[in-house]
Amino acid sequence: MNRSGTGAPAELFFEDLTPGRAFDLGTTVVDGREMVEFARRFDPQWYHVDEELARRSHHGGLIASGFFTVSLFMRAYVDHVLARAAGDASPGLEELRWLAPVRAGDRLATRLTVLGSKPSTARPGFGTVTLTASMDRLDDQGQPEREVLRTRFRGWFVMRDPALPG
Amino acid sequence: MNRSGTGAPAELFFEDLTPGRAFDLGTTVVDGREMVEFARRFDPQWYHVDEELARRSHHGGLIASGFFTVSLFMRAYVDHVLARAAGDASPGLEELRWLAPVRAGDRLATRLTVLGSKPSTARPGFGTVTLTASMDRLDDQGQPEREVLRTRFRGWFVMRDPALPG
Repeated sequence: MNRSGTGAPAELFFEDLTPGRAFDLGTTVVDGREMVEFARRFDPQWYHVDEELARRSHHGGLIASGFFTVSLFMRAYVDHVLARAAGDASPGLEELRWLAPVRAGDRLATRLTVLGSKPSTARPGFGTVTLTASMDRLDDQGQPEREVLRTRFRGWFVMRDPALPG
Repeated sequence: MNRSGTGAPAELFFEDLTPGRAFDLGTTVVDGREMVEFARRFDPQWYHVDEELARRSHHGGLIASGFFTVSLFMRAYVDHVLARAAGDASPGLEELRWLAPVRAGDRLATRLTVLGSKPSTARPGFGTVTLTASMDRLDDQGQPEREVLRTRFRGWFVMRDPALPG
């Protein structure tokens, strides 16, 4: 279980995820076709799938399903952290906020910060890490202009040097 | 803005979502091909996409990305409630728990319960509703055998009879 997310040997372990450590998860451009396809399958409300109705509404055009946006976050987290880390499935999210609409063509920059960590009592050899992530929409100059998503969640990570039992 | 999620006139409004009211969101069968395609795009960790590695691990086989499972919940929520309700985008989730692995072929039954509601202070004519949802894996007899997902979240809904201002 010292595999990273790709299945290769991991280089990031529980001990490396110290409080305050931050990761740049890169930039994602929202593909309008994929955004609408996702909504047709998982969240087919008119403001996610009906361009004409959405344009004439207070939304001013199609907006992404929040679950599409958080799925883009997940991909960025895998590419930039979990692909190198000895992680395991997550027990869940403590908070998820959709702070502003996301639209086709938006460029989203994602950051991740470790909030805290402690050995898991339930799973020997694992530690529980609490993390927070944030996605910002960038302006034409590549500067953050609006935070669109924020989440706080826990993940399990393998210890590099688990204490021997008893 | 009295459209339901389909864009047709709504029949469910803020006033109808009274605390304790529960909705059966039906049953969803997890399609293994779609489960893996979702993970390849959004959460390509080995235990979601590499059948052979997953089988030889403590997971005992491929498990769904948690974001796939919660996306299946969202679709059930749209089909059974939001398609009839004058809802608007959600500000977020207060909690999301992935309680047990979800696998190809699993039959998941989803329930939704209204926890509380109050007029929105920020958005006149809207109310904020707090809801909880739960997905249970069913056994061969169609009985719940394991809760796999639980979430608590807020949604905005249009009031049927908004108080006139001042």
